Amino acid sequence: MPKALVLERARELSLREIDLPLDLTPDAVRISIETVGICGSDVHYYQHGRIGPFDVEAPMVLGHEAAGIVTEVGQDVTTLAVGDRVCIEPGVPDFTSRASRIGLYNLDPSLTFWATPPDHGCLTPEVVHPASLCYKLPSNVTAAQGAMVEPLAVCIQAATKARIAPGDIAVVMGAGPIGLLQALAARASGASDVFIFDPVEAKLDVAAQFPGVHPLRPQDGTPAEQIDTATEGWGADVLFECSGAAAAFRDVALLLRPGGTLVAVGMPIDPVDVDIVALQVREITLVTVFRYANVYDRAVNLLASGQIDVDPLITGNFDFADSVAAFERAAEGRAQDIKLQIIMPGASGVSKG
Amino acid sequence: MPKALVLERARELSLREIDLPLDLTPDAVRISIETVGICGSDVHYYQHGRIGPFDVEAPMVLGHEAAGIVTEVGQDVTTLAVGDRVCIEPGVPDFTSRASRIGLYNLDPSLTFWATPPDHGCLTPEVVHPASLCYKLPSNVTAAQGAMVEPLAVCIQAATKARIAPGDIAVVMGAGPIGLLQALAARASGASDVFIFDPVEAKLDVAAQFPGVHPLRPQDGTPAEQIDTATEGWGADVLFECSGAAAAFRDVALLLRPGGTLVAVGMPIDPVDVDIVALQVREITLVTVFRYANVYDRAVNLLASGQIDVDPLITGNFDFADSVAAFERAAEGRAQDIKLQIIMPGASGVSKG
Amino acid sequence: MPKALVLERARELSLREIDLPLDLTPDAVRISIETVGICGSDVHYYQHGRIGPFDVEAPMVLGHEAAGIVTEVGQDVTTLAVGDRVCIEPGVPDFTSRASRIGLYNLDPSLTFWATPPDHGCLTPEVVHPASLCYKLPSNVTAAQGAMVEPLAVCIQAATKARIAPGDIAVVMGAGPIGLLQALAARASGASDVFIFDPVEAKLDVAAQFPGVHPLRPQDGTPAEQIDTATEGWGADVLFECSGAAAAFRDVALLLRPGGTLVAVGMPIDPVDVDIVALQVREITLVTVFRYANVYDRAVNLLASGQIDVDPLITGNFDFADSVAAFERAAEGRAQDIKLQIIMPGASGVSKG
Amino acid sequence: MPKALVLERARELSLREIDLPLDLTPDAVRISIETVGICGSDVHYYQHGRIGPFDVEAPMVLGHEAAGIVTEVGQDVTTLAVGDRVCIEPGVPDFTSRASRIGLYNLDPSLTFWATPPDHGCLTPEVVHPASLCYKLPSNVTAAQGAMVEPLAVCIQAATKARIAPGDIAVVMGAGPIGLLQALAARASGASDVFIFDPVEAKLDVAAQFPGVHPLRPQDGTPAEQIDTATEGWGADVLFECSGAAAAFRDVALLLRPGGTLVAVGMPIDPVDVDIVALQVREITLVTVFRYANVYDRAVNLLASGQIDVDPLITGNFDFADSVAAFERAAEGRAQDIKLQIIMPGASGVSKG
Repeated sequence: MPKALVLERARELSLREIDLPLDLTPDAVRISIETVGICGSDVHYYQHGRIGPFDVEAPMVLGHEAAGIVTEVGQDVTTLAVGDRVCIEPGVPDFTSRASRIGLYNLDPSLTFWATPPDHGCLTPEVVHPASLCYKLPSNVTAAQGAMVEPLAVCIQAATKARIAPGDIAVVMGAGPIGLLQALAARASGASDVFIFDPVEAKLDVAAQFPGVHPLRPQDGTPAEQIDTATEGWGADVLFECSGAAAAFRDVALLLRPGGTLVAVGMPIDPVDVDIVALQVREITLVTVFRYANVYDRAVNLLASGQIDVDPLITGNFDFADSVAAFERAAEGRAQDIKLQIIMPGASGVSKG
Repeated sequence: MPKALVLERARELSLREIDLPLDLTPDAVRISIETVGICGSDVHYYQHGRIGPFDVEAPMVLGHEAAGIVTEVGQDVTTLAVGDRVCIEPGVPDFTSRASRIGLYNLDPSLTFWATPPDHGCLTPEVVHPASLCYKLPSNVTAAQGAMVEPLAVCIQAATKARIAPGDIAVVMGAGPIGLLQALAARASGASDVFIFDPVEAKLDVAAQFPGVHPLRPQDGTPAEQIDTATEGWGADVLFECSGAAAAFRDVALLLRPGGTLVAVGMPIDPVDVDIVALQVREITLVTVFRYANVYDRAVNLLASGQIDVDPLITGNFDFADSVAAFERAAEGRAQDIKLQIIMPGASGVSKG
Repeated sequence: MPKALVLERARELSLREIDLPLDLTPDAVRISIETVGICGSDVHYYQHGRIGPFDVEAPMVLGHEAAGIVTEVGQDVTTLAVGDRVCIEPGVPDFTSRASRIGLYNLDPSLTFWATPPDHGCLTPEVVHPASLCYKLPSNVTAAQGAMVEPLAVCIQAATKARIAPGDIAVVMGAGPIGLLQALAARASGASDVFIFDPVEAKLDVAAQFPGVHPLRPQDGTPAEQIDTATEGWGADVLFECSGAAAAFRDVALLLRPGGTLVAVGMPIDPVDVDIVALQVREITLVTVFRYANVYDRAVNLLASGQIDVDPLITGNFDFADSVAAFERAAEGRAQDIKLQIIMPGASGVSKG
Repeated sequence: MPKALVLERARELSLREIDLPLDLTPDAVRISIETVGICGSDVHYYQHGRIGPFDVEAPMVLGHEAAGIVTEVGQDVTTLAVGDRVCIEPGVPDFTSRASRIGLYNLDPSLTFWATPPDHGCLTPEVVHPASLCYKLPSNVTAAQGAMVEPLAVCIQAATKARIAPGDIAVVMGAGPIGLLQALAARASGASDVFIFDPVEAKLDVAAQFPGVHPLRPQDGTPAEQIDTATEGWGADVLFECSGAAAAFRDVALLLRPGGTLVAVGMPIDPVDVDIVALQVREITLVTVFRYANVYDRAVNLLASGQIDVDPLITGNFDFADSVAAFERAAEGRAQDIKLQIIMPGASGVSKG
């Protein structure tokens, strides 16, 4: 039986053997996992045993941000070969569903997703996954970078649905891992300048090192005041709400230009107060996103071509054997810990990043 | 001095002489007003003396839904001639402003609008208006219909921004004048079926007479349940919120399909609770609209070609001399009074509708 | 062995027994065909034995416009039941392909399509087809109307991709079956007025009977002149080229407004001369369409709700036993024959239309 | 009287005094010109005395790519001050026209444009221009760069209308000044990789120095073959045709993926052969562009933020006194001359770039 990092119940993790389905089907590949990033949702399940309606009722393997190496291919697979390095899209839809047929396979109700109850995740040395959801990594993209494709894909989805136009001025609320990746994704998608706000100064310092990313520091006025100055009273073209904080929705219309776009990336636990009239008088559109569809290949392209550099965001890694410690560290929520990753036993030296 | 229906202050109307600017500028036309519809906002100013930040601080002429006959044209006007029957767009923007230049002249902050303090409205026999905001009525469109273009334009704006696709299933919340016009606009814009909800049964009876418009009666289940049945669990493509009620935003995501569109037409006075996550898991887009831009000609076309029939919604009219009584009646808010109009002294018999 | 209308080779048809695959798979249904429309492409194969690269190299059953009744359902089918009346989408894609995943399953290179070599069509009493490509007909839609969904779907696809806005002025070039359906589809999609041109006057007479559809008669000037007059020099919003004639692309820019849309529905055999600069100076967009994806349900909705009335276009029908005669008649290309249909033995009296 | 570079007639240039309208209107500014780029259209007028329907019938000042310093402001101007460094949008529309009102002011038929007969250009030390069409240059943007905004704006317009999505693969046909700027604009707008083709190898060498821009060298196969390999048979997302060559439209569909976009930037003199069916079977959209609207500020932002570096494309400059020699050099069409600029007498040392 394979070993895996198992969430037994809220606040109890074990690195132990567990029975996992590892039979190869004709359209699947077997992958030796190299790197797994720790996501805020993994930590949330660890701490609370649930996220909204998703309740951990049985032991569940954590992890859904993965890169690895193909070790075996199913008989119908033509697009991948043994030895290919890949990153892995963790949601498996029914491609014949009504939502999938209109291109929105991420919204297919039958979709299963790694480390979302009752489905196991990928913090285990080996997985079997549909080949059509595994994306080849070019030689200049490391496994560590490949494991960043999953959170980056969320932000590429948001940038895509925001329909960023060349030279847009963007604002990002929240400078956690998603907020920072969103800033990079927005700029790589055509924004000339990205302004980012977070109450934690240390996070803004990280953001400030990226070209074209400008921190909105609390001591310099409200975000609305600073955007007003930067845009000579016109407003930003697009705002990505990545904090999930109810307060971020207050006065949000004041930061946007007439006809601007507000994108809800962060997921506020409770309903939030929204001033509809404030949105209406500027005809602001609120776009919402849920995970991603058809963007993994695009995220890989943007990493490979140098449009997005995620390396400064990978701030620490742990061996698989130390997974529990890794989660304890992640649960501390240190400001300087942006993305912690776990290096699996199968990681090659070359691609360890 | 011309006579006009003047709101002296909250709850005090006079039909009296008032000094109004009636000099003809080179790019303007003089219009003999034939018909003026009474809008909910006129009634709200009458009852409360204000709408949101707009405070009636000095006597103001009411009315902004007008059709009339051109009686004189400015020297630079080439598109209109004396005798032309027109409907009149009541907002006058600066077409060189930044918002106007991107096609959103309705969002130009310098825009003035009839019967929005401090600007006078059109409940007076004669107005002078920029020719470029007056739209010729074909001979088969009556003045009464022409005065309906203003509220209809709001709904065409909403239907346009909703990007209705052919065969869409639409839902309208609220069956007041705007909700009913929205149902007609949605169907004329490509929706095959429009489901409409209102707690007042009598309003649903009006709606039910239009082909393709289906009332969601409270006794048949919640709107969500009824839409679920009608769409076999898929959801509607687009929902127009026309009630302005905070409650309408609750559970609104349940009525929409994955990737659906919610359009905020009604203007809720206070911030409303919005369940962002419920929107996200279906990637619903919230579109907001504010009045209209570039749709008056389109609304006229749709009336003239028979795509939209507003006649059943014009439920009563009053002579200009009885304007005060007309407002008192409108303020009663009778369910069967959908649109009351005032017939001005200059109305020709032919076009009285 | 079932009987079918078999194209043996160019200009040779037989109504004879032929071996067809009729085994029921778990996700398929068995359908008793009621009505099959004759399409121009069927006739073209009959007359020429090929269309472009598609060469009839072995005997092939014709027909791809079908409606029928479900007589057996596969074990995994949950959406259909025996007795359901359906219309049938004739193209079967691989829904996991790259094109399908972005919502463009009609462009999947592996797609098979009825009566496109080497695949057999549906002019046979019984077919087996994936349930997900069969669409229930409401009780108020006849089999004859259901068999019109296929060509109508082409036009709904075009209207959808054209992004018709409410109150658009549309032009249709060509008044054959597709041109006429395109006119109806355009109007049902939000166009207030549709102008249609054809050199054959008799076809324009058919078009003229539909509300909002205006013939552009040759004796009244060129189409460009007539549109110029009708739109006061502005131009139409959208033009659907449905003739497939190279000449139709000449001067096409003159009919469109700045920012207008040209949709290529007809398929010109050879490359056509296009004046790119004429398109550029008006920033016209050329949209192309190929069959349809995700519009069958929408077409059914529009028929059922009365937005589109195809009955005047169904101008004749033949019994299955007279199929060869039906094709000979169709090959004559009489102006008054718009859509000829074949009534299959299994047609119920009720739904014969 | 001011001096200017005057095109007397085809092939005859003079640097001489000429009467130009230099009165300041209330909404205009007076500008001391610093730098003027030489455009291919200037050279074409010089060589041929006409471009399409635009015939040089009277002496005309050349030049339309300009940056300068504001020296006087009209009484109604609030957005600019004396000393501001600006780049200047050379087309002056009527912002109240029908095209302008829908955001397409570049398509207003009444628009006047520098150095397009009969209107004079800007190769003269001083111009008066509407303030609303002058865009402030930040301190880190030189006058030389500012004079590149005009051709860059053409490419930003194309990138915007192409609706580039993050991670798109783009192809550019033609590596002249516009092709090269288009490659940079495409990448700055979200393309991860831009492949560029030109029969002249030296131009590809220039292109190859930019990150993410990959030359398609003739010796490596046809462009279609190379794109097929690079995209594993899928095709590019968007293709910008910047050569204006009729041959470039041949086989263009083979380079694009299903649902891809073809953008016609170059202006072919004669109608070109287009294989409509080849576009249809991939549902390719052809977008056309004409100059630009609402993108100058965006182009400035992208230069200022470092998203686009035009310096390698500015390959030579001449003093105003040597303007005639500059045009003779430009007319030679040397492969290594990408953009030649003329430095005007008023250029400050600081901003000479």
